[in-house]
Amino acid sequence: MVAINCDMGEAYSIYKCGDDEGLMPYITVANVACGFHASDPVVMQKTVRLCKEHSVKVGAHPSFPDRDGFGRREMKMDADELTATVAYQVGALTGFLRAEGMQLNHIKPHGALYGLASRDADVATAIANAADYFDVPLMGMANTQHEAVWGKRSQGFIAEYYTDLDYRDDGSLIITREHVAYEPADAAERSVRAVREGVASSIDGKDIPMRADCICVHSDTPGAVDLAKAVHEALQPYLT
Amino acid sequence: MVAINCDMGEAYSIYKCGDDEGLMPYITVANVACGFHASDPVVMQKTVRLCKEHSVKVGAHPSFPDRDGFGRREMKMDADELTATVAYQVGALTGFLRAEGMQLNHIKPHGALYGLASRDADVATAIANAADYFDVPLMGMANTQHEAVWGKRSQGFIAEYYTDLDYRDDGSLIITREHVAYEPADAAERSVRAVREGVASSIDGKDIPMRADCICVHSDTPGAVDLAKAVHEALQPYLT
Amino acid sequence: MVAINCDMGEAYSIYKCGDDEGLMPYITVANVACGFHASDPVVMQKTVRLCKEHSVKVGAHPSFPDRDGFGRREMKMDADELTATVAYQVGALTGFLRAEGMQLNHIKPHGALYGLASRDADVATAIANAADYFDVPLMGMANTQHEAVWGKRSQGFIAEYYTDLDYRDDGSLIITREHVAYEPADAAERSVRAVREGVASSIDGKDIPMRADCICVHSDTPGAVDLAKAVHEALQPYLT
Amino acid sequence: MVAINCDMGEAYSIYKCGDDEGLMPYITVANVACGFHASDPVVMQKTVRLCKEHSVKVGAHPSFPDRDGFGRREMKMDADELTATVAYQVGALTGFLRAEGMQLNHIKPHGALYGLASRDADVATAIANAADYFDVPLMGMANTQHEAVWGKRSQGFIAEYYTDLDYRDDGSLIITREHVAYEPADAAERSVRAVREGVASSIDGKDIPMRADCICVHSDTPGAVDLAKAVHEALQPYLT
Repeated sequence: MVAINCDMGEAYSIYKCGDDEGLMPYITVANVACGFHASDPVVMQKTVRLCKEHSVKVGAHPSFPDRDGFGRREMKMDADELTATVAYQVGALTGFLRAEGMQLNHIKPHGALYGLASRDADVATAIANAADYFDVPLMGMANTQHEAVWGKRSQGFIAEYYTDLDYRDDGSLIITREHVAYEPADAAERSVRAVREGVASSIDGKDIPMRADCICVHSDTPGAVDLAKAVHEALQPYLT
Repeated sequence: MVAINCDMGEAYSIYKCGDDEGLMPYITVANVACGFHASDPVVMQKTVRLCKEHSVKVGAHPSFPDRDGFGRREMKMDADELTATVAYQVGALTGFLRAEGMQLNHIKPHGALYGLASRDADVATAIANAADYFDVPLMGMANTQHEAVWGKRSQGFIAEYYTDLDYRDDGSLIITREHVAYEPADAAERSVRAVREGVASSIDGKDIPMRADCICVHSDTPGAVDLAKAVHEALQPYLT
Repeated sequence: MVAINCDMGEAYSIYKCGDDEGLMPYITVANVACGFHASDPVVMQKTVRLCKEHSVKVGAHPSFPDRDGFGRREMKMDADELTATVAYQVGALTGFLRAEGMQLNHIKPHGALYGLASRDADVATAIANAADYFDVPLMGMANTQHEAVWGKRSQGFIAEYYTDLDYRDDGSLIITREHVAYEPADAAERSVRAVREGVASSIDGKDIPMRADCICVHSDTPGAVDLAKAVHEALQPYLT
Repeated sequence: MVAINCDMGEAYSIYKCGDDEGLMPYITVANVACGFHASDPVVMQKTVRLCKEHSVKVGAHPSFPDRDGFGRREMKMDADELTATVAYQVGALTGFLRAEGMQLNHIKPHGALYGLASRDADVATAIANAADYFDVPLMGMANTQHEAVWGKRSQGFIAEYYTDLDYRDDGSLIITREHVAYEPADAAERSVRAVREGVASSIDGKDIPMRADCICVHSDTPGAVDLAKAVHEALQPYLT
């Protein structure tokens, strides 16, 4: 069984970001921005309501406090600061969930915080300490400190596979700022293979083990809606 | 029966504000800043923990988004924006409460938002709409739009009496930026009278009706701790 | 003689806003956002450099401190606060001008600050006090407090005519959040008439006096580039 | 010849920080916060005016964009981002200087930005690129990347000696978050020795070479005013 997740609600003020409405029919889980790298209270409320309409589960997508840098700049924060900073954002989101009678599904950190936590066990732990307050699993990458740290926590770990990004032979993800267009049929095929066989193909064509509890699609990849649609269709038999 | 409340957790970053630790023993309810006029995630978490240690109940103290102005500058916001802005802040606080196994007690808006809501029914309503999400009462001033609007909401209204500020003959509060020192014994006597008789004395010496479900003391009044101590002692028989 | 101005550099972080590059060839003066309602240091620097490439003069476009609301929400600020807030933003812009060997041309307040200053002489004065520090003229609307207050200041006043918005019979502008498409040929004709005859046609078809030292076009009007191009072409003989 | 410098204007909103007025008579140069780690437009304007009254020269004290963390948290920023971020802050300060007919004296980065620049030549270079726009020297520590990078720039480098902090045998500074009280007479003696002989004593009692163009005192060291007074008195014959 597998879920399809996408970062959502990354608009801000008058600024738009991604075709949230277009993507909603093709995902099952949303990672909703919490105002520290993108979004604001109005956007958060709208996004939660949009998820509800589409029966999409809502996870929190907290970030370093870095709106100017869209949360893509690493910051050196103490563990306690980091836990409190994540808890603040997740708590803020839960207010809007409460308003709609919804439950928080998970936490997936954003951008530089996500990347740093994949390499640094202390950072991963600080985030997990905040997740404890809400008793929800953390979502991240297999074969990284995400899995090493979060996999041991009582509330569970959700491994996500990026269907529109490439992996190296060692199973590590090649993160890019600007996402390039991906053939929907290829993404769909990759997704099914990861879900059925637990295997992905690296950028050099090597088979690598790939745990895929969840498939991640990006709203800012060109052709994102078509890609999500193809993945959704191909995974139909496996969706939770 | 009466409670004693005080604004708490208005420190920020390296900056201190008020003697929260000194006051905690003498209050029963805290209005905790939520990061929009004062406080940050670390300060919020510390403040909630401090409240827990002292068995002080925690209410949210949301503000206009105006950190530079300490929430003292009125802003013209749409009703929906205002509801979302309040819900964001209150939600953020509930995360820290959840971490400590505590419940949210009430919402009391801060500064210019509090003042504007006392005069403008639409603003008061927008705030109440956010309070609905959390199913908690709102705290404010009797004889204002606070009472007119919030008194009719299902979750209830808590009328607070300011023991260290003066009132006009018409029952309206004289709000000052810099609080002047107040004789503790006078404040204690005023408080008891309001609680027992439902009456206060205006700045011109006239008796005015005063509903007092809660006594408010300020942490930034000179001699705040002594004043709170005197009020606390005098109200001992009436405390909830 | 007339100039053509447009608000520029209102992108922010990863967010785009308006086709600045497309419009540059057709304007002579830019009002550059200063980071309080839109923009950030990187966007400001890029925008100033883009202006330089196109020999477009640079004015400052300061705002209330309200990034969440894109500077469209009125705030009640003391005169001294307002002067300092404007001076901060304008000063920040001059650093980037200095880097390019350019001079500040004027100041035009943004959004709610612009609107409030057109109705409130104290607000207009507080802004003018900041303009004094930089010894540049203020740009705004004729027949409002802009002209009444700024017209008397030693550094001068630039009256702008909105070619893509409508006016009432009393000469007041009908400000809209979402700008509707305007026929380029009409806009061009209106602009020439205002410049040559000092007259505009109100939304009800009445001739109204219209001082037009500068024609304002919006980057977020649908078809903005075509409109600016048509206006620019028609005004060619009159451009400063 | 030597100057005495101190970080100034680190108050914010309603929050105070350091006894700026008490220290002004005993310093010759101020590093004025620019709103990214502390201060706001009102505080900046007041601080610049206070400097003018006391004939104290004004330098800019820019920071990472990190108000919550008082600029003490390292951020990974691109060189261009960093240059623009510093230029923005310095530019903002120059507006207030212009209002008082004053000139910018130098730039001294704050907190984590200062520390990172002392170890990372790329960061030091990015800052120097912003200083170029304003054609002022940079202030920092001898025997670090500050001196290595900034010492080669055409606009010059000002080496500062911390009279209220300790140094290691290798000449590196022991930076502490909370400054401890220092004997004024000792600080004065150390300062004179550094100025006259170019030598300091390490925490282990070893003589180390110490270039001291400027003596730095901290406003948040306990007894800061007495210490500054003693240093000022002892250095009287050497002051620029």
